[in-house]
Amino acid sequence: MPTGPQDMTNRTAFFISDGTGITAETLGQSLLAQFENIHFTKLTRPYIDTPEKAKAIVQQINAAAAKDGARPIIFDTLVNQEIRDIIASSQGFMVDILSSFLAPLEHELKERSSYSVGKSHAIGLNSNYADRIAAVNFALDNDDGARTHYYNKADIILVGVSRSGKTPTCLYMAMQFGIRAANYPLTEEDMENLRLPSSLQPHRHKLFGLTIDSERLSNIRHERKPDSRYSSYAQCEFEVREVEKLFKRENIKYIDSTHFSVEEISARILVEMGIERRLK
Amino acid sequence: MPTGPQDMTNRTAFFISDGTGITAETLGQSLLAQFENIHFTKLTRPYIDTPEKAKAIVQQINAAAAKDGARPIIFDTLVNQEIRDIIASSQGFMVDILSSFLAPLEHELKERSSYSVGKSHAIGLNSNYADRIAAVNFALDNDDGARTHYYNKADIILVGVSRSGKTPTCLYMAMQFGIRAANYPLTEEDMENLRLPSSLQPHRHKLFGLTIDSERLSNIRHERKPDSRYSSYAQCEFEVREVEKLFKRENIKYIDSTHFSVEEISARILVEMGIERRLK
Repeated sequence: MPTGPQDMTNRTAFFISDGTGITAETLGQSLLAQFENIHFTKLTRPYIDTPEKAKAIVQQINAAAAKDGARPIIFDTLVNQEIRDIIASSQGFMVDILSSFLAPLEHELKERSSYSVGKSHAIGLNSNYADRIAAVNFALDNDDGARTHYYNKADIILVGVSRSGKTPTCLYMAMQFGIRAANYPLTEEDMENLRLPSSLQPHRHKLFGLTIDSERLSNIRHERKPDSRYSSYAQCEFEVREVEKLFKRENIKYIDSTHFSVEEISARILVEMGIERRLK
Repeated sequence: MPTGPQDMTNRTAFFISDGTGITAETLGQSLLAQFENIHFTKLTRPYIDTPEKAKAIVQQINAAAAKDGARPIIFDTLVNQEIRDIIASSQGFMVDILSSFLAPLEHELKERSSYSVGKSHAIGLNSNYADRIAAVNFALDNDDGARTHYYNKADIILVGVSRSGKTPTCLYMAMQFGIRAANYPLTEEDMENLRLPSSLQPHRHKLFGLTIDSERLSNIRHERKPDSRYSSYAQCEFEVREVEKLFKRENIKYIDSTHFSVEEISARILVEMGIERRLK
C-alpha cells in the first residue's frame, strides 16, 4: 500500500511548443504543482514546427503512456493545425493553453489574434530585450562591490553578508525584469562597529538588505571554504547579527532569503521598493 | 486617422497573483502578443493576499479603465475566493488562468487540486532549486575562460568571439534550467591560424558555438570601447569570419545570436545538444 513518495503515482507531462516552450512550461508547471500526490516526469519539446518532428514526439508520448500505464499530460502552445492534429493523434491528454483564452480575448479586444489566423508568433528583439541584456551586464559589472561609482545608475543596491544570495538575485532581477541591480558585500573587516560604508551613504534610498539563517549560511560557505573561520557557525552568527542590527538602525528594509527562491526574493523586493517590472 | 504606432489603441493589462506573479505574467504576455495592433501597458501585482491589498488594486484597475476609456485586461492566478470576488468587482475584464484548466485535469488525474480546496500553493525550496543556484555559481566561476579545469563538470561549453552573447546565455541556462554552462572566449590573439585551444580539446562533445553579425558585434563592442581597434568593423568582421571557419572545420555546432533572444538561443542549444532541461 502507498506509504511514501516512492509509492506516488507516476505520470509524464510534455510541454510542447513551436517556439521556446517557456509559456507551456511555466503554466504547465503551475498547474501540475496543484496535484501534490502525483509525481510528474516533465519533458519540454520546443521548436516542434514540422510534421516530422511532431510524429517523433507522438512516439515519445506513446512510449511514456506504455511505461506509466497512464495517459501523459500534454500542455501545448502549437499554432499550426496540421501539427496540432498529429499531436492529438497520440495517446496523451491534451491541454490546449492558447485557444481557450483567445476567443474571449478576441471578443473583448475586437481584433482577431495572430493565433486564430494561423500565424506563428515569435517574440522579437525589441528595445526591452536590449534593456534586459544591458541590465545583466550592469549586474555583472557592479557585482560584489567591484565598483561603486555607477551606483547613481542603479535601480537598486543589495547589501548583505557574503553568500547571502545577493548575486543570483541581482542577475535574476536583471534577466527577468530589466532591473539594474548592484550589490555590495558587508565583509568581515567591516563587522566591528559596523557602519554604513561611505560609498553607500548617498544611495540610501536604493538599498535593500538580504539576511539569512546563520546555520544555512555556514553550510553554504562550507562548500566554498571548508573548515575555515569564514564558514564557521560562530563567525556566520556574528556577521548575521551585526548586519541585521545595521539594517534596523539605518532603517534599511530587508528580507530573510533562507526560505525563499530567487524568484520570490526578487518579486518581494520589487514590491517593497515600489519598482515596476520592465516586461518583455 | 490612425497611421502609426502612436495611434495604436491603448489598453492596460494587470497580472495579479497571491505569489510571485510569474505564471500570470508569462501566460498573459504570450496571449497579448497575439494582438499586434494594440499597445498594452503591463502591470504586475504580486502577493495580493489580503482583502485590503485587493481593494487597492481595484482602485488601480478602475483608474486605468478611466484613463484608457476601455476595460483593463486582468490575468490572475488568485486562489482565495474572497480576494477573487473583490478583484471581480472592478471594471476589468478577468481572465481566470487556473480554474479553466484545473477541472479537466482533476478529472484526468482523479485527484482534487490544492486550488480547488482553496489552498494557496507556494513553490518550495526543493533540491532542483539548489541545483539552479549551484549552476548560476558554476556559470559565474567558469565565465570567460576564467578557469578551465572544471570543464569536466560542465554540461556545455559555449565558445565564440568576445561579446557574442556567451555570458548572458550561460547565466540564463543556469538560472532557468539548472544547466552547468561554462564559456570560453576566442580572443584576438588566437585569430591568426585559429585552432581549437588545447584546454577545449578533451571536451569537444560539449562545445557549442555562438556567432553574430559583424556590424552588430561592432556596435555592441563600441559601447564598451568606443573607437577602438577591438570595436572596429574590420576587426569584428575578421574575427567572426575566422571563428565561423573554425566551427565548420572542427564540426562544432553553432547558432547566429544576432536575431534571437537569450531565451531562444538557450532553448535551441539544448535541443541541438540533446540536453534535457532540469525543471523546477
